[in-house]
Amino acid sequence: MTPSVISFAGCRRDFLIGEDTPRRFLERCLAAIEGHERSIRAFAAIDIAGARRAADHATRRYRARRPQSWLDGCPIGIKDIIDTADLPTEMNSPIYRGHRPVVDAACVRALRESGAVILGKTTTMEFAGGRPPPTRNPYSPVHSPGGSSTGSAAAVGAGFVPVAIGTQTGGSIIRPASYCGAVGWKPTYGAINPGGVHPLAPSLDHVGVLAATVADAWIAGWAMANGAGPQPGWRTIQGIERPPAPAKLRRVARLFFGEWDKTDAPSRERFEQFLDRLREKGVAVVDRRTDRDLAQLERDFADAADDTLHVITYEMRWPFWSYRDEHPAKVSRRFKHLMAPGAGVTHRAYERYLERKASYRRRVLALRRRFDAFVGLSTSGIPPRSRTDMGSRANQTAWTWLGFPALSLPILFAQGLPLGVQLMGYPDEDRLLIAQARSIARLVEVV
Amino acid sequence: MTPSVISFAGCRRDFLIGEDTPRRFLERCLAAIEGHERSIRAFAAIDIAGARRAADHATRRYRARRPQSWLDGCPIGIKDIIDTADLPTEMNSPIYRGHRPVVDAACVRALRESGAVILGKTTTMEFAGGRPPPTRNPYSPVHSPGGSSTGSAAAVGAGFVPVAIGTQTGGSIIRPASYCGAVGWKPTYGAINPGGVHPLAPSLDHVGVLAATVADAWIAGWAMANGAGPQPGWRTIQGIERPPAPAKLRRVARLFFGEWDKTDAPSRERFEQFLDRLREKGVAVVDRRTDRDLAQLERDFADAADDTLHVITYEMRWPFWSYRDEHPAKVSRRFKHLMAPGAGVTHRAYERYLERKASYRRRVLALRRRFDAFVGLSTSGIPPRSRTDMGSRANQTAWTWLGFPALSLPILFAQGLPLGVQLMGYPDEDRLLIAQARSIARLVEVV
Repeated sequence: MTPSVISFAGCRRDFLIGEDTPRRFLERCLAAIEGHERSIRAFAAIDIAGARRAADHATRRYRARRPQSWLDGCPIGIKDIIDTADLPTEMNSPIYRGHRPVVDAACVRALRESGAVILGKTTTMEFAGGRPPPTRNPYSPVHSPGGSSTGSAAAVGAGFVPVAIGTQTGGSIIRPASYCGAVGWKPTYGAINPGGVHPLAPSLDHVGVLAATVADAWIAGWAMANGAGPQPGWRTIQGIERPPAPAKLRRVARLFFGEWDKTDAPSRERFEQFLDRLREKGVAVVDRRTDRDLAQLERDFADAADDTLHVITYEMRWPFWSYRDEHPAKVSRRFKHLMAPGAGVTHRAYERYLERKASYRRRVLALRRRFDAFVGLSTSGIPPRSRTDMGSRANQTAWTWLGFPALSLPILFAQGLPLGVQLMGYPDEDRLLIAQARSIARLVEVV
Repeated sequence: MTPSVISFAGCRRDFLIGEDTPRRFLERCLAAIEGHERSIRAFAAIDIAGARRAADHATRRYRARRPQSWLDGCPIGIKDIIDTADLPTEMNSPIYRGHRPVVDAACVRALRESGAVILGKTTTMEFAGGRPPPTRNPYSPVHSPGGSSTGSAAAVGAGFVPVAIGTQTGGSIIRPASYCGAVGWKPTYGAINPGGVHPLAPSLDHVGVLAATVADAWIAGWAMANGAGPQPGWRTIQGIERPPAPAKLRRVARLFFGEWDKTDAPSRERFEQFLDRLREKGVAVVDRRTDRDLAQLERDFADAADDTLHVITYEMRWPFWSYRDEHPAKVSRRFKHLMAPGAGVTHRAYERYLERKASYRRRVLALRRRFDAFVGLSTSGIPPRSRTDMGSRANQTAWTWLGFPALSLPILFAQGLPLGVQLMGYPDEDRLLIAQARSIARLVEVV
């Protein structure tokens, strides 16, 4: 199977002139699901009848030339750690088998208000960190789909939905997006209200998007931000709803992230070719081999990888220690193993990690005037040939730790498998990052 | 009834030498409850058998001279918006009638680990902001007990428990503490992990303590902080478990909070006498009439009161708009009225409020070298003669908005009713504030 992603934003004009309808768009999605969901297994739950009703409502709104938003009628999958009142929310954990939340999560409420069609719940690693779901990579049944937003990435990559919601605490949006050939967008930390999303490590938990195109990602992220607002105490996404025009990049910093040496040769080669293409188009590409600031930054990130893991496991004490102690048979060994190191992190050490993080943030912010953005591989190579190895977080950790926005662009392939390019920006400049991504997509003539 | 509060910390020595036991302490609490709970109605649920078992375990640990903490065996009430796995958690809302959380809240887990005896759930205003519970003020059946941590304050004031857990978003610990004759401690924002506490307005929600004495408040706050850690991304309470020795105050800033003119004359008189007593003991008391910084501060706080309300109602959009829309008959008119103004607060305005808050914080921090602490009345006078008027938040808003620590000390009486003195400090210096409070309690020879 060579799946083809389907853009919703790209059909908007046809919806408005009556050449296409959200209901017909949904039926195309359902046909793809009918054809391949049995082998991909991207969904934990699906509500076809409800989706058809919602798509019909949207169809009528377009017919009346009054769609509620750019997202009106868009079929969407919701990662199954995110509360939905009309569908079970099971977190891929027997503790929550059959669980029905009282109300939708803040981001789901916002999506519904924008007219989106909530088609189903997408599979997740247990609580976004433990046992993998049975989901397959849409490009290869023997390669990892990545995690933890596994079903969201696979559903988009397989062409089942143009948009799915994910979360990232380490690399859980960018990594599966790269492996499954989807766009992944982890917005600035705090930009989208995480109310009703099961916590993993709240100081690092981000709500974000997996989508067919950068424009689809933008309209979904905008709808969530506009409707739900930010995490309390933080800032939401700035700018108007319409996807931004491409913004030219003049000078980018290229990041290696430490695992470059372990990256497979074909992936390295593709990425170097991509950089050559950028240079041909007049973009200056600077890296640690000639720039002292960037050399220092890459050293910082090498430390940050450990800091992040300590902070995540420290924050996992609640509620996961309670799950482990009160429901020991219902927590996987893999998840118990993940949380164990938290016991060794003192309150004092935790404060030191947070202080160090603040200093990294300042150091990257100081580069704002020198570099328009940062680029690197989204993952340290193509997906592992394994269904349970969900991949390394080495390439995603830095921008998650900083809380700055990152995008994975599905513009490269190596050995027939998708390989994402990661574009990373500055906080609260998500709209600019989206505009830069559209420029890159145009340069390489892929998306 | 003139209730008498009962200190747990004060019995520790007797427990250690075998002159008293946690089980006997619990029985004294149960006798007080047996005598008066029917009229006070401080509890939403109570587990006498479970409490007796836990007290017996604690008794054995003291007998073996191995108590788990200073709080080991202490009977505690938990505000009913805080999750407990073994008791219903109903938020005083029909939406949550019979609700049983999967696991304890982070702070409850920490209390249990310290050996505390969870005796029951204390009444709350609906979701800590709406319909009042049927609870009475232990000092007078016709006067308000205050809210929203109504049952926690009444249970401590009535001598039912030495410690109860509360939360404060506007004035919900300090105000009922003042009205019911309890110590109230709202720690620095973020110092105690709010995981498993139903949100009201998360950027302002604080977990705190109502207690018989300052020492009782400290050991309970310390146990929660030490066991549960901070809100992710924040700092927890510093210092050792043993309550601090009194710390002398040399120079304090007195705050009027705008509502001084509306405060009843007897309350004003008592507070002036208290300040005279401080001066006699050598404490310099400075206020806005002679100090320009303080004059500016009081003007700032007048604006901050509105800002706070806008921020609270903005953050209430989720989940309360969903409760209102999905369960309209189950949300009180009072609560709907409270949340309504949030619709008028834009994302942009919300950001401006947060920026203004940051500037207030800097301005108060700049006074660190000039004043050891701030003092004012906890409330704008004695409790209202009403069962549904839960009192004005005018005197509590400033330190909640700042996120700095505040204590209410039950050391004054006016017209036979309790009247708290509010002592307010600097962030992350909760232990110092507790030490200063003990010094004040000693000066006025009351607590």
